[in-house]
Amino acid sequence: MGGLTVLAALREHLPSENFIYLGDTARLPYGTKSPATVSRYASAAAATLVERGVKALVVACNTASAFALQALQQQFAPLPVFGVVEPGAEAAALAASQAADDSGVLVLATESTISGGAYQRALMTMLNGQPVRGRACPLWVTLAEQGPLDEQFVQTVLAHSLRGFTSTGPSTVLLGCTHFPVFQPLLKALFDELFASGARDSAVNIVDSADTTARSVATALRQRGLALAAEGAGEVRYLATDGAPRFKSVGCHFLGAAIEAVELVDL
Amino acid sequence: MGGLTVLAALREHLPSENFIYLGDTARLPYGTKSPATVSRYASAAAATLVERGVKALVVACNTASAFALQALQQQFAPLPVFGVVEPGAEAAALAASQAADDSGVLVLATESTISGGAYQRALMTMLNGQPVRGRACPLWVTLAEQGPLDEQFVQTVLAHSLRGFTSTGPSTVLLGCTHFPVFQPLLKALFDELFASGARDSAVNIVDSADTTARSVATALRQRGLALAAEGAGEVRYLATDGAPRFKSVGCHFLGAAIEAVELVDL
Repeated sequence: MGGLTVLAALREHLPSENFIYLGDTARLPYGTKSPATVSRYASAAAATLVERGVKALVVACNTASAFALQALQQQFAPLPVFGVVEPGAEAAALAASQAADDSGVLVLATESTISGGAYQRALMTMLNGQPVRGRACPLWVTLAEQGPLDEQFVQTVLAHSLRGFTSTGPSTVLLGCTHFPVFQPLLKALFDELFASGARDSAVNIVDSADTTARSVATALRQRGLALAAEGAGEVRYLATDGAPRFKSVGCHFLGAAIEAVELVDL
Repeated sequence: MGGLTVLAALREHLPSENFIYLGDTARLPYGTKSPATVSRYASAAAATLVERGVKALVVACNTASAFALQALQQQFAPLPVFGVVEPGAEAAALAASQAADDSGVLVLATESTISGGAYQRALMTMLNGQPVRGRACPLWVTLAEQGPLDEQFVQTVLAHSLRGFTSTGPSTVLLGCTHFPVFQPLLKALFDELFASGARDSAVNIVDSADTTARSVATALRQRGLALAAEGAGEVRYLATDGAPRFKSVGCHFLGAAIEAVELVDL
């Protein structure tokens, strides 16, 4: 479901490209599952897309990127395979290094992404000694899939996952789950309230791995001569492994647009 | 995960029996998935247990019971296959019919169980015109899997799902998801506050499908001469399809006891 935020960003940066989107709705969420199982599911999903003749593959899920990107790159070489972790980490490291203080980065993601530590490791090699913290936000995925709820309630749930952080940090928050961009306006207010009061003058930087990935994919496709010339609007085909009605009704909140036709596929 | 509340109840009512418990952790949760997919998963899980020579099968998940019970009974006949929906509905209908007023039953369950309507249909045929209402509580499953959190926060999330109900009803609440019994003490206070103020003198009846199923299975096994004579404590073997560490750490909250060894199986 969350991958649709990445698709929305990709369409913004590559408006003429055609996309095939596969949502593994039969086995979601990936965020509580083990690295071996996530890798197995990601490999089967990727093979379905590769069979349809794609020119590049985007792993639009942080958990799958963290656990399976390298294996997918090997499995489907020389096809370009992009993940969301590296672009997100790079953008967060840049933002933190340009911040007025060295209070570092907070990564918000699923249980498995946080406990796997891929973001934390990537950031620690990029940041010069600034602190890197991770916090699993397990309720946020389910909350995001409910669509719009009353703001005060959503804010209570979001704030609960941020308990214990004080006004001393961080300068930068990395949204390390593709579900989380739907909360961006609420999170901005919350971070500014929690982290920007007193000690910090400037607003907290929010880095959205969906947007940074889309920029990075667009650049890479152009560098490799794989990008289409901008001519009209591209098309999107949607595949899902289960429940087309729920995919449409829940998915539109993440995509920010209606989803018309969904083809069911079996992996 | 929630099936462990059913296992705990079964062990209480059948202390000498041996159990094999299978948690389909690679594909949980079932509560957002379609009937066809839930049936397919339930059939594969049941086959794994039947191969190990069980004398009876309990479908310890409301969503799987609602969508797959009949198919499993046919697939594995003459093996007794028990679900959680019918015992829960019968107990709730009995409680509502004995209540001081006819304000009916509220079923709290997952998205798929509520939208499938199995509980509502069963209750409507059993209750003489009393209202039957269903409410999906999608956040509760994820919340329950977090283990103990601060009570005030949990109460806020629980209360949010009950918004719109007033002091006029219901007399009886059916917990139609095996995850929900872990909230029972908090829910009791909440229901009494929401539903028992003013209009109602008596406390709200809470029917837990885990406990009612265990009673019903114990009775059925005895009637069929399948129950073991009570001699010492039976053993439990745990199988899971993914993530043994998470199965142990999360599962103990549902079981109310430690889980020692977990065997990984592939369906």
